[in-house]
Amino acid sequence: MGFRATPRVRSLHSFPGITVAQIDEEVAKLLQLKAQIGGDDGKHQFVLKTAKGTRDYNPKQMAIREKVFSTIIGCFKRHGAETIDTPVFELKETLTGKYGEDSKLIYDLKDQGGELLSLRYDLTVPFARYLAMNKITNIKRYHIAKVYRRDNPAMTRGRYREFYQCDFDIAGQYDAMIPDAECLKIVHEILSGLDLGDFRIKVNDRRILDGMFAVCGVPDDKFRTICSTVDKLDKMPWEDVRKEMVNEKGLSEEAADQIGEYVSLQGGMDLAERLLQDQKMSQSKQACAGLSDIKLLFSYLQLFQATDKVVFDLSLARGLDYYTGIIYEAVLTQAGVATVSTEAQNGAEESVSVGSVAGGGRYDGLVGMFDPKGRKVPCVGVSIGIERIFSIMEQKAEAAAEKVRTTEVQVMVASAQKNLLEERLQLVSELWNAGIKAEVMYKKNPKLLSQLQHCEESGIPLVAILGEQELKDGVVKLRVVASREEKPSGDQQRRIPLPGWTEE
Amino acid sequence: MGFRATPRVRSLHSFPGITVAQIDEEVAKLLQLKAQIGGDDGKHQFVLKTAKGTRDYNPKQMAIREKVFSTIIGCFKRHGAETIDTPVFELKETLTGKYGEDSKLIYDLKDQGGELLSLRYDLTVPFARYLAMNKITNIKRYHIAKVYRRDNPAMTRGRYREFYQCDFDIAGQYDAMIPDAECLKIVHEILSGLDLGDFRIKVNDRRILDGMFAVCGVPDDKFRTICSTVDKLDKMPWEDVRKEMVNEKGLSEEAADQIGEYVSLQGGMDLAERLLQDQKMSQSKQACAGLSDIKLLFSYLQLFQATDKVVFDLSLARGLDYYTGIIYEAVLTQAGVATVSTEAQNGAEESVSVGSVAGGGRYDGLVGMFDPKGRKVPCVGVSIGIERIFSIMEQKAEAAAEKVRTTEVQVMVASAQKNLLEERLQLVSELWNAGIKAEVMYKKNPKLLSQLQHCEESGIPLVAILGEQELKDGVVKLRVVASREEKPSGDQQRRIPLPGWTEE
Repeated sequence: MGFRATPRVRSLHSFPGITVAQIDEEVAKLLQLKAQIGGDDGKHQFVLKTAKGTRDYNPKQMAIREKVFSTIIGCFKRHGAETIDTPVFELKETLTGKYGEDSKLIYDLKDQGGELLSLRYDLTVPFARYLAMNKITNIKRYHIAKVYRRDNPAMTRGRYREFYQCDFDIAGQYDAMIPDAECLKIVHEILSGLDLGDFRIKVNDRRILDGMFAVCGVPDDKFRTICSTVDKLDKMPWEDVRKEMVNEKGLSEEAADQIGEYVSLQGGMDLAERLLQDQKMSQSKQACAGLSDIKLLFSYLQLFQATDKVVFDLSLARGLDYYTGIIYEAVLTQAGVATVSTEAQNGAEESVSVGSVAGGGRYDGLVGMFDPKGRKVPCVGVSIGIERIFSIMEQKAEAAAEKVRTTEVQVMVASAQKNLLEERLQLVSELWNAGIKAEVMYKKNPKLLSQLQHCEESGIPLVAILGEQELKDGVVKLRVVASREEKPSGDQQRRIPLPGWTEE
Repeated sequence: MGFRATPRVRSLHSFPGITVAQIDEEVAKLLQLKAQIGGDDGKHQFVLKTAKGTRDYNPKQMAIREKVFSTIIGCFKRHGAETIDTPVFELKETLTGKYGEDSKLIYDLKDQGGELLSLRYDLTVPFARYLAMNKITNIKRYHIAKVYRRDNPAMTRGRYREFYQCDFDIAGQYDAMIPDAECLKIVHEILSGLDLGDFRIKVNDRRILDGMFAVCGVPDDKFRTICSTVDKLDKMPWEDVRKEMVNEKGLSEEAADQIGEYVSLQGGMDLAERLLQDQKMSQSKQACAGLSDIKLLFSYLQLFQATDKVVFDLSLARGLDYYTGIIYEAVLTQAGVATVSTEAQNGAEESVSVGSVAGGGRYDGLVGMFDPKGRKVPCVGVSIGIERIFSIMEQKAEAAAEKVRTTEVQVMVASAQKNLLEERLQLVSELWNAGIKAEVMYKKNPKLLSQLQHCEESGIPLVAILGEQELKDGVVKLRVVASREEKPSGDQQRRIPLPGWTEE
């Protein structure tokens, strides 16, 4: 082949005067050429599939999804949250500079003229944009919607390129730790309500982490990278984490060992108290502020009866840059589910604990990034790892060989004899008008057996059976599908108006 | 300056051996180079807005949206529908060739390596893809989700680039007109249930239209274009439609006048009977099949008590290519709302009647386009013009100066004195645990007035007020916000456990 553009391009690297505008122009020309050639080379086979990393939800999956959403939304509403919605795509620049390295995972839309757009990567940045744009300084809102990441999908483990996020956030200038405690209470209520087995909510504070790094002698410019190494402690033993710190990140052995001592600590309010007295830790003003807040948090959690599941864990270090205060993460502790990897939650670069099903924290600076005058709106929020929860619920339903109903039909209107279509249609219409969920087969003369089979398959509990005799007697035979009991009498007795009676 | 790749690219045009794969490689290299240079040249102004043609939904809009959805979903469920969900983007080729001219309105994703993707344009094509891919031959499903069209937005008139569709479809080989009649019954129930004022459902049949064109002497190859001119009859007087047919589309005056006579006809079952006897119309086998089905449809609609709103209208000609049988469209007939233009519904090129709020029809060939062996799955469905309905409901709420609640909070836990934060937190937690929707202000010492104001603003009906005296007496004062009535006695009397009692 003689297409020699490749070496030409290569030569550009050494060309000093090249501008981005010129590259854009160049790319546009090549793409136009591609279009002229006629799209792809040759005819490809038509592929019947969804895009990589995405899936359809079938009715069974939707039924489970609805149940989970209803528990979660019920909790959000119980706590007085409003809801908002934002478009699925944002101006590209709205997302720029918010996700660090992971920006490469953002889906861009094709430049078809007009604005440059990207699919939303999470719900937190659109929320911050919404607050700044509408100058909202306090709101308690939830938002459940799909987000998009060009990640390597691991779909068997519930990791997709299109997935739901389910966020609850409280924005506003309030007294310390009150909204923060409510977020944890919400996680507690939701995980209890979904009946996913035992769980633990780990809490820590960005200021405690930073203070700890400072007093252990980590250079300022290494805070973030050391923090992301600490973040691996839920997947790696300490020895390996230490090795990474020392060998890869160039931390002194002494500093690493001191960090090692701290990050092995877990406890409750008592631990926070002890660390406030700790000779080293107490040198950091930041750490002390964080520790005092942890104490306050636990006192509120006691009032909320939520301390049984909450543990102050100095190894928790959620990777998101925008956290400024308390951070937390909930993990399922039962063996069966803890071995599966989990869906990435709220934001970029976060730690994905094995079994992690919720996470969040305080981010007081994000909204200010969107405000022209940099006005800050303090925020704290939590993201429920809903896809992970779907998977667990699906597995549970399958394991229990549970019959998941995909409709809510209460009555099937059936006939035992031929030529009763009109009577069936009239009766089903009466039921609909009375607000009863009812179905009828779309056949003139369906067999009784196939009508009953449909009920068994889709879990319809009752059949209203019409026959010549019943029509003559002005009643409907009601059959309980499960017990096969039939009763044309008593409460169930009812007149059927003959066709034409009600019309006109 | 001096970047001379442009002429190099130009030279590629004349180069015979170039392949698309090579162009792709070339583009990738240039983009990589662009990334190295560092994104965009210079700093541009940061713009705080949503993408063109899109909007956020604020809590008030969401409350209205939820109400509308709940009515519609309630109806779909009453009729035994399951629900599914599909990804927001599809392989580009899945959408190719389904929307005719309007394909230019499809949003493509940027080619970032891997598959070429596009945002879904409607829910019907993904539904057909889903059926073919999963070899499903019968299903009754609804699907409510956003679709995307790079149209010229007219947002003041409720026309957006991102908007909801709300589809109900019945797929399967059934006896004629039974599922079709249920779709119309559903439109009838939903529009009655939403209380949007009077409405009319126009029905026609693609086969009647085609038969009519044939007997009026329209050449075969002009059926589609004449059909789309007929489609304009709800917005243009007949004289203008006739002019377009004759002057622009080259139809004979005689043929146009014959069409003119037919399309002025409106009626019910009687009209269908009359046309079956019509000397000209009866010559078309197609038209006769359609007319017989219209008769059958009306007989079923009588049983469903839905004929009061349905009219057989020979001027109805929904533009979508994929319709094969009955078509219908619902319009609001009240003056106030009929003047506003409406949201495009189900599919491309469809007619957008003034005041149109639902539309659909039978499309027996679409699924076959996705099946490798072309196996057909007959389908009939309806799309509710939900954005149009949102706008009307919003206008109504505004006109009525109606207070739309955005939360469902039942009780505000307040205090009259200082230093009762702990007691408030404990009580609100008790209420949450009891399933009661409750709120508390996130302040240590909020003023009673500001707590009461919050209740008035957000429509919270009850305040539970804590004070020293109540704590001593072990009761809570309950205040009805609207009447300012207070009662610490009777049913409302309750003990408050002191802090610490329930913990441990």
